[in-house]
Amino acid sequence: METTVRNKQVILRDYIRGFPKESDLMIVTPVNTTELKVIDSDDPVFAKGDFVWGIVDWEEYSTVNSIGRSKIDINVNVPLSYYTGILGLTGLTAYAGLFEICSPKKGETVFVSAAAGAVGQLVGQFAMLMGCYVVGSAGSKQKVDILLNKFGFDNAFNYKEEPDLDAAIKRCLPQGIDIYFENVGGKMLDSVLMNMKTYGRIAVCGMISQYHLDTNEGIQNVPVVIYKKIKMQGFAALDFFDRYPQFLEFVLPYIKERKLIYVEDIVEGLENGPAALVGILHGKNVGKQVLKIA
Amino acid sequence: METTVRNKQVILRDYIRGFPKESDLMIVTPVNTTELKVIDSDDPVFAKGDFVWGIVDWEEYSTVNSIGRSKIDINVNVPLSYYTGILGLTGLTAYAGLFEICSPKKGETVFVSAAAGAVGQLVGQFAMLMGCYVVGSAGSKQKVDILLNKFGFDNAFNYKEEPDLDAAIKRCLPQGIDIYFENVGGKMLDSVLMNMKTYGRIAVCGMISQYHLDTNEGIQNVPVVIYKKIKMQGFAALDFFDRYPQFLEFVLPYIKERKLIYVEDIVEGLENGPAALVGILHGKNVGKQVLKIA
Repeated sequence: METTVRNKQVILRDYIRGFPKESDLMIVTPVNTTELKVIDSDDPVFAKGDFVWGIVDWEEYSTVNSIGRSKIDINVNVPLSYYTGILGLTGLTAYAGLFEICSPKKGETVFVSAAAGAVGQLVGQFAMLMGCYVVGSAGSKQKVDILLNKFGFDNAFNYKEEPDLDAAIKRCLPQGIDIYFENVGGKMLDSVLMNMKTYGRIAVCGMISQYHLDTNEGIQNVPVVIYKKIKMQGFAALDFFDRYPQFLEFVLPYIKERKLIYVEDIVEGLENGPAALVGILHGKNVGKQVLKIA
Repeated sequence: METTVRNKQVILRDYIRGFPKESDLMIVTPVNTTELKVIDSDDPVFAKGDFVWGIVDWEEYSTVNSIGRSKIDINVNVPLSYYTGILGLTGLTAYAGLFEICSPKKGETVFVSAAAGAVGQLVGQFAMLMGCYVVGSAGSKQKVDILLNKFGFDNAFNYKEEPDLDAAIKRCLPQGIDIYFENVGGKMLDSVLMNMKTYGRIAVCGMISQYHLDTNEGIQNVPVVIYKKIKMQGFAALDFFDRYPQFLEFVLPYIKERKLIYVEDIVEGLENGPAALVGILHGKNVGKQVLKIA
């Protein structure tokens, strides 16, 4: 095992796998954070039993070079799976998109699409904690119920039951939208643009309605960006990784005080992974899709 | 004339009228800055012969309340008409869009549409002064010649002679676009999005190709905003009016040293105004359209 020693290898048991968030699905290799438990290690930094997070293949066991890997510093009594989500890139995505791109102010109106999803549920709750008026859209009655009754959104609608998205938005947000957290694209974006307020901000996290199409739907209302002076910005959480400690400082107290609710959709068994991935594209998951491997 | 005295009225001779820039054409009442000469005044601040700038109706003489009006502080030997353009909102538009929205860095690539227009010609030259590689598009051979030979753009093309805008952009900017200054919208924006570099910035000043359409063209490539992490922002110069002194400090030395070239398209006589306004929509003007009234 000399080579192993020189290479600082770690043998890991794949534990819990987070699924990609909506926006990663358009990239060829989706980035999935996996929580891994150290089984054997020739790197003194990683002791047997330690938890490590990282990106590995879809497998039950992984042998990886330890250089550049980092242990999970479990400093709060939460399920380990939270580190694939609310305390991982999912949480950082919601945080960076809302705070770094959109700078929410108390009393502003925030609209979140795919609001019951991994990122959306956090964006909505973060915005409510800031004193914003928050409305979400989702694709089933069950999801809308969760938005209203579990997360306490100010209002919500099921886009599949709305023949006119523009009317649905106007009903829930008659005063217009200051901040839109974009997860779906297509017709929803077109309707949102018509309802943005002057100086509105749009954080573009994903456009899941477009990924299965051969040709994207055209967005007709882009010109309103001019006279409403709208900022629209795509982003990825990894670009804000230096804000991770600041994010933890923000989010951990709320988790401890149970002021944040986090919903996961847990599937067990590696063999059920592909079906769960397809399920995300069809909006089947409620909350963050997670795969329990061990 | 007692009422006049109390009201601090000024009687003005309308002198030179600047036409709206592209983006103003979608607003019902286009904002036109006009240079006016004081003929009579009961406000001691405005003496006979002073020049004033402001927004007035299409007329030969104007009687206005002097409150809130400001004299033109002519501190450089340039044509008076420059105050409707390069030293007015046109210049501030180019400055704010390029510097405040897009933060150009030396060596970056900048693409400007409607580049021979009032704003575009300045954006391109400002970017070249920053050490950027600048390419412009325009709608005639004459305009492309001006871009290349008068303003010294690094490259330029006539979009009307390009059957494939994507190919034209790739030919002129094979390395991609860091900054796009948007004046036209529609198919050009769609092609530009495909050629933006990661972390690209788009200042959205106008979309003149869309204003005469009953229904806007749909923009299909909006999803690239996500994985290229593009910022796209609409703006208006008036929101940056507090930067005007800073802008003058930047631009006046370049004008004095003749490092900036400014092209105007001057029409004489109020009766020729409407035709010139229609001409802008058809891309007939070369440079800033100005109407000489007196």
